[in-house]
Amino acid sequence: MSTKSIGVALVGCGTVGGATAKIIVDNTAKIAARSGVELQLLHIVDRSYARADELGITEGARTSDLAVVCADPNVDVVLELVGGLTTAKSIIEQALRAGKHVVTANKALLAHHGAELLALAADNGVCIGFEASCGGGIPIIRALYDGLAANHIDAIYGIVNGTCNYILTEMIHNGADYPTALAQAQKAGLAEADPTLDVSGVDSAHKIAIMASLAFGVNIEFASIPVSGIDSLDLKDVLYAARLGYSVKLLAIADRRDNGVMLRVRPAFIAKEHPLAWVSGPFNAVSVYGNTTGHTMYYGRGAGGMPTGSAVVADIISLALGSIPAVYRSSPALRGGAKEVAVIPVSELESRYYLRIMVADSPGALADITGIFGRYGISIASVHQDEPTDSDNGGSTAPVPVVVVLHTAKEQDVLAARDNINALESTAEVSSVIAMQRYRYIAR
Amino acid sequence: MSTKSIGVALVGCGTVGGATAKIIVDNTAKIAARSGVELQLLHIVDRSYARADELGITEGARTSDLAVVCADPNVDVVLELVGGLTTAKSIIEQALRAGKHVVTANKALLAHHGAELLALAADNGVCIGFEASCGGGIPIIRALYDGLAANHIDAIYGIVNGTCNYILTEMIHNGADYPTALAQAQKAGLAEADPTLDVSGVDSAHKIAIMASLAFGVNIEFASIPVSGIDSLDLKDVLYAARLGYSVKLLAIADRRDNGVMLRVRPAFIAKEHPLAWVSGPFNAVSVYGNTTGHTMYYGRGAGGMPTGSAVVADIISLALGSIPAVYRSSPALRGGAKEVAVIPVSELESRYYLRIMVADSPGALADITGIFGRYGISIASVHQDEPTDSDNGGSTAPVPVVVVLHTAKEQDVLAARDNINALESTAEVSSVIAMQRYRYIAR
Repeated sequence: MSTKSIGVALVGCGTVGGATAKIIVDNTAKIAARSGVELQLLHIVDRSYARADELGITEGARTSDLAVVCADPNVDVVLELVGGLTTAKSIIEQALRAGKHVVTANKALLAHHGAELLALAADNGVCIGFEASCGGGIPIIRALYDGLAANHIDAIYGIVNGTCNYILTEMIHNGADYPTALAQAQKAGLAEADPTLDVSGVDSAHKIAIMASLAFGVNIEFASIPVSGIDSLDLKDVLYAARLGYSVKLLAIADRRDNGVMLRVRPAFIAKEHPLAWVSGPFNAVSVYGNTTGHTMYYGRGAGGMPTGSAVVADIISLALGSIPAVYRSSPALRGGAKEVAVIPVSELESRYYLRIMVADSPGALADITGIFGRYGISIASVHQDEPTDSDNGGSTAPVPVVVVLHTAKEQDVLAARDNINALESTAEVSSVIAMQRYRYIAR
Repeated sequence: MSTKSIGVALVGCGTVGGATAKIIVDNTAKIAARSGVELQLLHIVDRSYARADELGITEGARTSDLAVVCADPNVDVVLELVGGLTTAKSIIEQALRAGKHVVTANKALLAHHGAELLALAADNGVCIGFEASCGGGIPIIRALYDGLAANHIDAIYGIVNGTCNYILTEMIHNGADYPTALAQAQKAGLAEADPTLDVSGVDSAHKIAIMASLAFGVNIEFASIPVSGIDSLDLKDVLYAARLGYSVKLLAIADRRDNGVMLRVRPAFIAKEHPLAWVSGPFNAVSVYGNTTGHTMYYGRGAGGMPTGSAVVADIISLALGSIPAVYRSSPALRGGAKEVAVIPVSELESRYYLRIMVADSPGALADITGIFGRYGISIASVHQDEPTDSDNGGSTAPVPVVVVLHTAKEQDVLAARDNINALESTAEVSSVIAMQRYRYIAR
């Protein structure tokens, strides 16, 4: 039986880098016994070693000079765990040109420049492992290129941002409004001081771009993905969702169609029967629909040092064993050679929709509204209007909330109907329009 | 970019074999485009070709002579999809000795003779792919040897029998009793005419033996696994579970302890907060607890031709690319060379327990029972007794059901207490003792 040894240089010893170093140090003997791979942490490259000191990591020569690392013939793989776009890209390019494999957790960089970097790796006879870029400790990238390799993958629906899911769970379970839930997430260390990248949906868009490229074997222009976040979500809609049998989740969607790929990130109503509706707190899950397996789902911690470090180390092991190189060698997408694909414009998209409309409690108001939907050829599935309560500002003619659920309709028609309703002379204003997710096939 | 071609011989063209042939035929071009592997179905070996005819499969020379297949130098991999122990073992041995890789879905055979067959494969420089043996279309075997390779795996909790989970779901959601739910499963084609292997828990035991061997890197004596099934489950207990906030599931458990491995299959109460409680109908899910990822879960269809065929074809692709050989080369467990491990005897196991006790509605009866638990040092967490109803056979002194939930206790003490209660002079009889599952760490 053979044992493989692999020399590792870690660039960036922060949360994920520090955890990765800790896993390498703590689990080396166990990994060697089980997988036959001996991990050798040869260099740690950073400007500060506070985190390494904190973890008591003494392995690895400390340096700030990447050139030293790239010149060391014992280094087989460089871990880029710096994050960001510019410096990280330059680190990866230097390492690849020096003939080193790269492992990275950098979803922003891969979403923007993945194909270019994978092609550069292939040109230099090396690979980029990026299991850590999506879903933290969940081995979803491997599921897409390996475990589900027999499938024509039709669709991916992902809850891939733990910060957002934690906030939504606080809203759903504890009735917190968005600002309160966000503050709670920040207090729990689950949201940054500036949470924009997470709550705006952009982080989720990075991840769905990476997963869709791999699953569908295509290149995706990141800027073409329509993205909306949870930052304008009203607690009222989250509570109505629960009453109607749904959970509101920030969903990253990739759906293969005959005329291209439908990609988007948006809050959506998920029927409580679907497993994605169950995913709570900071956990992530990715549902994959394939033409032979049907629905499979992958669940786990989507962020944090140790789970993400687990994915980084899994890639190092697969590089040492040669399984990543074996798979990459024959895959156009993993060599950066997949073709550009058309992202279907939002105007063509269809869905079921939930609308909350503030309607004047006066004769004819509801008839005006339903008339507008009728003119756009949109069928109404259900209408819910409660008795007005004191909290609806009292007064018999004060507007009351009416919840309208639509059958499948084109988004652009729904939005046009919304604008028409808002322009009505009778007081009526559409407060929210939220998609109700349908799945490619099979309910669960 | 390289394209790899692989010659396949299919032995056994039944449900899984037929579906595998169909996937190969239907998805060949898509698989070649995405993974760079060209699948060539060269032989179909069976005594009947009814299923192949039904699927319109014209590929592959039809033969009943395995020797012809083994002598064909273009055959790289033999698929054993016959099932059973004797013939299947002989087919696999012949193929391995002829230097052919093998892919199999045969969990019974691997649970009993896995190490021996993997060693024979290694001796002949080939591999056995067995993704299809556990969890159907869920790539759980790969998660254990590849995706979670950075982890020291602590525990696995699996719902790995779709027949049982379908029956339990019928009981939970529709209030069907066991015989009715079983009949329903048979009608839906989800249970065999003789369902013993499924409902007795033996099929689940096969799967947990395979997963535990791989996850812990050990050899397990199959006969040492304590197994109980769902065939004696009373609907009353399923309904009490729901009232207490639990779902009853047939759970296959592997838990690594300092003094060995705890393995067992049994019905258990799963708290509704744990994702395993959500798994409904014929779906399967496997929770894996690793020391770096924490909890991850893998969900999908655990049986059926197409999902299982998906796993078979994934293994063929990985054999063609060389990623399975790369991983197997360095893994003691995948070369059949892992060491025997002690399975911890049932007498040493601890758990929380639920008991339903029929107690005479007479003074002192409950005191007698609680006194017995006290004598065994077992703490009672809660006691629930409803007002007697007509359905409890009426009469003021007729026995009434009392539900007792125990704190963690040794199983042997709980069973001894049960025997003592049953021997009481006051009328009291323990109708059910069901474990309440706790997890290795973290609630979700």
